[in-house]
Amino acid sequence: MRLALELAAKAKGQTGINPIVGCVVVKAGRIIGVGTHLKRGTGHAEVHALAMAGSESAGATVYVTLEPCSHHGLTPPCCERIIQSGAARVVIAMVDPNPKVSGRGVSRLREQGIEVEAGVLEAEARKLNEAFMKYIVTGMPFVTLKTASTLDGKIAAKSGDSQWVTGPEARELVHTMRHQHDGIMVGVSTVLADDPQLTTRLPVPALHPVRIIADSKLRMPLSSQMLHNREAETIILTTEQADPERIRALEATGAKVLPCGTGEHVDLKAALKRLAELDIGSILLEGGGRLNGAMLEAQLVDKMILFFAPKIIGGQTAPVSFSLDGWNRMADAVRLGGMQAEQVGEDLCITGYPVYPASSN
Amino acid sequence: MRLALELAAKAKGQTGINPIVGCVVVKAGRIIGVGTHLKRGTGHAEVHALAMAGSESAGATVYVTLEPCSHHGLTPPCCERIIQSGAARVVIAMVDPNPKVSGRGVSRLREQGIEVEAGVLEAEARKLNEAFMKYIVTGMPFVTLKTASTLDGKIAAKSGDSQWVTGPEARELVHTMRHQHDGIMVGVSTVLADDPQLTTRLPVPALHPVRIIADSKLRMPLSSQMLHNREAETIILTTEQADPERIRALEATGAKVLPCGTGEHVDLKAALKRLAELDIGSILLEGGGRLNGAMLEAQLVDKMILFFAPKIIGGQTAPVSFSLDGWNRMADAVRLGGMQAEQVGEDLCITGYPVYPASSN
Repeated sequence: MRLALELAAKAKGQTGINPIVGCVVVKAGRIIGVGTHLKRGTGHAEVHALAMAGSESAGATVYVTLEPCSHHGLTPPCCERIIQSGAARVVIAMVDPNPKVSGRGVSRLREQGIEVEAGVLEAEARKLNEAFMKYIVTGMPFVTLKTASTLDGKIAAKSGDSQWVTGPEARELVHTMRHQHDGIMVGVSTVLADDPQLTTRLPVPALHPVRIIADSKLRMPLSSQMLHNREAETIILTTEQADPERIRALEATGAKVLPCGTGEHVDLKAALKRLAELDIGSILLEGGGRLNGAMLEAQLVDKMILFFAPKIIGGQTAPVSFSLDGWNRMADAVRLGGMQAEQVGEDLCITGYPVYPASSN
Repeated sequence: MRLALELAAKAKGQTGINPIVGCVVVKAGRIIGVGTHLKRGTGHAEVHALAMAGSESAGATVYVTLEPCSHHGLTPPCCERIIQSGAARVVIAMVDPNPKVSGRGVSRLREQGIEVEAGVLEAEARKLNEAFMKYIVTGMPFVTLKTASTLDGKIAAKSGDSQWVTGPEARELVHTMRHQHDGIMVGVSTVLADDPQLTTRLPVPALHPVRIIADSKLRMPLSSQMLHNREAETIILTTEQADPERIRALEATGAKVLPCGTGEHVDLKAALKRLAELDIGSILLEGGGRLNGAMLEAQLVDKMILFFAPKIIGGQTAPVSFSLDGWNRMADAVRLGGMQAEQVGEDLCITGYPVYPASSN
């Protein structure tokens, strides 16, 4: 099962809104097939692994990180493929989180006399598919907020200089994270300050997430790099109040403009819902302080990855990672559950899951 | 030598401006004496350990964490005590950092035919006496800056509520740190905001460091808890511009007022020099943002201990850990050398040593 989880992990970022799944087929102490789900609409992990095992699969044990599907989706159901293979036993890390189908695969296999064990290394499997789980259950994308700041919480010096806050190891890790997400989100202030490309730059070819810019007043310049560099799609979130002329000009560059809400600011919750409908199941939020703050106050952040560089830059006006009205009582703060810290190069990487207090909304 | 270092560590905070030293005497595979320097002006570690060993010490090996002294200070020289004991071999972790006497103890012992080995577990020994080393070499106190903030760098909510930022484990650790320092320093803003006692509160009786308040305009209220709670001494740092009347009123409560510098603000460097002359060799700086920032800009901070609680509180006006003008280029930031992070209860404790860029002064 460890190997199956590793196989799954390698495909992170390339299955879109599908889960990542690994599968290993074992018989008489030997591995006779391995498989990974590689891309939405193509063969599932079990199909690849059983194809590799071929006629040897009769009587074998199938280890798979997610409950095999029992329904016809874009591909035929994996349960039928397993039954047909003659496998004797199926070991599953986690059942399907989709409440509509959860448990049906297990039942179908058992009906056919196949021995099924579920829950092996379940915590690891759930973590691997945390984005898929949120998306399939709620219809909303899983949002990972990422910051890179000094120890005094600044993402740039007061002059605006931000090259570099963190070291090369942390910066490369962020590009790997981009590859692993369907979308990457910033505020228009970041575009105005840095005019970034927001593509995935790694020593090996990688996938580019859809670039999403929150831009209530459509201040995005037509000369922005993102509107010229067409390696990735660009979606601009705005409001119903946006100037139709300006929308047309931006769309003429190939970008898509999504009006979300009738207020002064982008309705972030509605925007995420729209993005989910466009098959964006996971978003890496690399906002400035205001967008990060607004997303947190709207309780739309699912995970946080905070890089701290070992430095103090100062500057009362220097931009910060989090800018929000916040709460009056320390006890009402958003907590970071399951906080973990690890060293990445010279920097510190803190991860955790926000826990929102009932009183904060 | 590990045991000798552990014996030394236990006395941290109770030797004042003297180093902490441990000693173990071993003969034929058995420990025959242990000793620790406990208090300035009383017996050194070697004296206690050799007294315990008694007549057995002839031919023994003496493990000691710091080079034995060869000069008459408040007590007779340890070298002579070792020579007199008949010990055959002396193993030393680090030579005396005081450039005036460094190496003399080793020479004296060798002259008398005693085998001497130096540098065993030297890094650990130096770390244990990092405050003493700075004090003895430069005549300035070793300053450890400590903060306790949220992940967005706030030491309180915008309302001022700060109970509590960090959890009970981190708070108890801070009280242990107070016990281990000669002085504890805050700005008058902290007194005005929280009116703290700044004593050491631990489940066991502990030492109270001298309380030091930076108060350029002598805004410290006569009703402050610190001026009534007399468990510890109180020193108020101010400037030559301070009102003599006000100084007399404050001193009437038993506090000492030190005018440092003729400018508008306390000359922090001169103040630390004065404090060192008053036998304050180590200071725990628990300032608010402005004092922390000023001490950092004056390059007077030797070590940082930053607690981060796993929460985000927000608030544009909420007080922060570091408030300073800062630098224009990210490359000019004060770096935290040798950064290490560890979990303390639910909080994260980051430690390191500031490295000041040449251009920042």
